[in-house]
Amino acid sequence: MIANTPKPPYYAVIFSTLRTSDNEGYDEMAVKMEELAKKQDGYLGIESARNDLGITVSYWESLDAILKWKNNAEHSVARKKGKELWYKKYQLRICKVEHDYGFEK
Amino acid sequence: MIANTPKPPYYAVIFSTLRTSDNEGYDEMAVKMEELAKKQDGYLGIESARNDLGITVSYWESLDAILKWKNNAEHSVARKKGKELWYKKYQLRICKVEHDYGFEK
Repeated sequence: MIANTPKPPYYAVIFSTLRTSDNEGYDEMAVKMEELAKKQDGYLGIESARNDLGITVSYWESLDAILKWKNNAEHSVARKKGKELWYKKYQLRICKVEHDYGFEK
Repeated sequence: MIANTPKPPYYAVIFSTLRTSDNEGYDEMAVKMEELAKKQDGYLGIESARNDLGITVSYWESLDAILKWKNNAEHSVARKKGKELWYKKYQLRICKVEHDYGFEK
């Protein structure tokens, strides 16, 4: 779903990924990390889609909240496994959302 | 593919969408708009994925480049059709990319 974020400014982490063919444990870990992210201070929402390319955007109140999530112990273990097993290539971009607008029918 | 962007700072437009069931003309327009975006001054790259939710992130050198693309005549026609026909809901977020890093096996 589209994340219900507050008025800017807030922060976005754009995580763009190409997967390996190794799927073992990936789905379980992805669910677990999303659940864990939601419990972090400063978490605002998450959006995810995948075809060949996967894009996950998580939204945060501050750079400090992003840094704390990066340093979370369970998340660090997951990131290490991601590099070893699940990701062929990724790019992570940390952004300040300056403007936003929406549309709904 | 993952966009080959330069060192930050640069800008990202995160376009998160939920589609209607009306597909007529959508794929053609999406291809046309991506081709047109690539020709704009200040364009840096694009990434796209869709399941139920679609996420397209385009990257730009400056806010001015984003504004010029927004005001492009053909793009304005496409956006109007998007609201009328193809999108049930969307959120567009304009962001300054402050940091990024990548990984490749």
